[in-house]
Amino acid sequence: MEINVAPPKRGEVRITQRGVDPTGVYPCILGHESCGEVESVGEGVVTCKPGDKVIPLWEGVMPLDKTSRFTTKEGKPIHHFMGTSSFSQYTVVPQECIAVIPDNSPMNMMCLLGCGVPTGMGAAINTGKVERGSTVAVYGLGCVGLACVEGARLCGAKEIICVDINDHKLEVAKKFGGTKFINPKKFDKPIQEVIIDMTDGGVDYAFECTGSTNVMRSAVESTCKGWGLAVIVGIGEAGKEISTRPYHFIVGRQLKGSVFGGWRSREDIPKLAQKVIRGEIQLEKYCTHSMHLSQINEAFDLLKKTECIRCVMNMQEK
Amino acid sequence: MEINVAPPKRGEVRITQRGVDPTGVYPCILGHESCGEVESVGEGVVTCKPGDKVIPLWEGVMPLDKTSRFTTKEGKPIHHFMGTSSFSQYTVVPQECIAVIPDNSPMNMMCLLGCGVPTGMGAAINTGKVERGSTVAVYGLGCVGLACVEGARLCGAKEIICVDINDHKLEVAKKFGGTKFINPKKFDKPIQEVIIDMTDGGVDYAFECTGSTNVMRSAVESTCKGWGLAVIVGIGEAGKEISTRPYHFIVGRQLKGSVFGGWRSREDIPKLAQKVIRGEIQLEKYCTHSMHLSQINEAFDLLKKTECIRCVMNMQEK
Repeated sequence: MEINVAPPKRGEVRITQRGVDPTGVYPCILGHESCGEVESVGEGVVTCKPGDKVIPLWEGVMPLDKTSRFTTKEGKPIHHFMGTSSFSQYTVVPQECIAVIPDNSPMNMMCLLGCGVPTGMGAAINTGKVERGSTVAVYGLGCVGLACVEGARLCGAKEIICVDINDHKLEVAKKFGGTKFINPKKFDKPIQEVIIDMTDGGVDYAFECTGSTNVMRSAVESTCKGWGLAVIVGIGEAGKEISTRPYHFIVGRQLKGSVFGGWRSREDIPKLAQKVIRGEIQLEKYCTHSMHLSQINEAFDLLKKTECIRCVMNMQEK
Repeated sequence: MEINVAPPKRGEVRITQRGVDPTGVYPCILGHESCGEVESVGEGVVTCKPGDKVIPLWEGVMPLDKTSRFTTKEGKPIHHFMGTSSFSQYTVVPQECIAVIPDNSPMNMMCLLGCGVPTGMGAAINTGKVERGSTVAVYGLGCVGLACVEGARLCGAKEIICVDINDHKLEVAKKFGGTKFINPKKFDKPIQEVIIDMTDGGVDYAFECTGSTNVMRSAVESTCKGWGLAVIVGIGEAGKEISTRPYHFIVGRQLKGSVFGGWRSREDIPKLAQKVIRGEIQLEKYCTHSMHLSQINEAFDLLKKTECIRCVMNMQEK
């Protein structure tokens, strides 16, 4: 439906996904990976100015005053989502929650720096601190998992074991730096035992990128004794718990979590954007589809069917 | 019963707990925290010589050839225990499994460096790397937990919350550097919630020194978001598992285990012995009782009743 997006209040900025003819159809205000241009700023904004290219950084829900900047044409308020609500041509966020990126950023894909790609890469680079020559297992080969594979490769891992229950995902992981590919459905024993056998004792690092608590257990148990580190990246289902024998920790394993890849968002995302511009990170590998916002349900279906890595939504009027 | 202890084979040393009249009654060969003197060495031993004061380091079970050095008078073999079997006047261990300590070591208590005290202290110092000014919770105030409290104090922790279900243990912990003392039985809510309230968000470090998987969960959940580190020190019951919500890790908590306090045994135990000699570590605080080996069942009862921290067994003839 058509909605109103109020002007930014004190300390807020309004961002637009500007195009040739910037209108569109907006059924609801989900969306958290995006990029756009600052359209206007509220009083007291010092972190950016109108015209700046920016990536909104997801955070809590709404501004300090807990009110919404979205209303229906009839004036009813609509909630924000993750503080970003980027499936809207305009959105309003606190000035603290934007990363200003270079003017020459390719805005057709820079949105991918909004969450999944930095989350996976950073899990390997910042949280895991994967060392050169080490062995790595990555569970789950969605955008986050593939970015984690790429992060491990950038760190110089010598072996990157990619784990997914979809064979076509394993195929995709070859392009991101995977060295071995295993489908747990094709083994009679738990996948952690398969990995322990493959690596003569377990991997140095395991990254869980599915959100399944069973897979989290596999991740812990597939690392080696002494120094093996498991990193939870996926968000677990509500009410589910991770369980494992404490013995696994006593013998030297560690468990950590990673949120947004451990990046300091406002400082680090602009640096990642520079890497994209210089060609050191190829976002196009992650951007398998592009659609108009009017096809959003089709895009969600693609994700559910694991047929896309990321589908970038074009917000401009058709 | 009386047993025979064979001479050391290649690479092994025989240790005796020498006294005025070195004989005694030895019902079985348990025992892993001890100190003694090298009585004889096998072929190829380079790490020590007869007469050296040593602490046996627990390890796997037996020497390379998998045979025992203990036999009954009738010649039946008796198994070793933890590679140490120190409830015997003589024991044989591989030369790699001893730490040579200074000649002027107080042999009436140096045995305490054989496991519990270094395990607890090292969990705070080496595994946790507790930082000056930080907040700490220690669950379980046996020898290991009290040593962990002391380790945290040596690291300069500003707040050390001691947790035990026995009030008299909480009282004891005051002497080791505890600053707050709580008994989970006296609260209606889970102890992790009590600690989170006490510390306005959780402690920087939590150490689990009981072996209960429920307490391990409390330890994880009582640390703060962002960087809270839980360290499992206690050995869990067979078959029991630790469970918690993965969310706790996603928001920045970490879980590690610690074995023998992360010390490099042969290098570090002699250094700890020097600290004991210089009075920097007061082992006498941990040594609440001393008994003759003939009273060993009484000593085990004291431990079970939580009435002693450590009872040192005198191996000499009465």
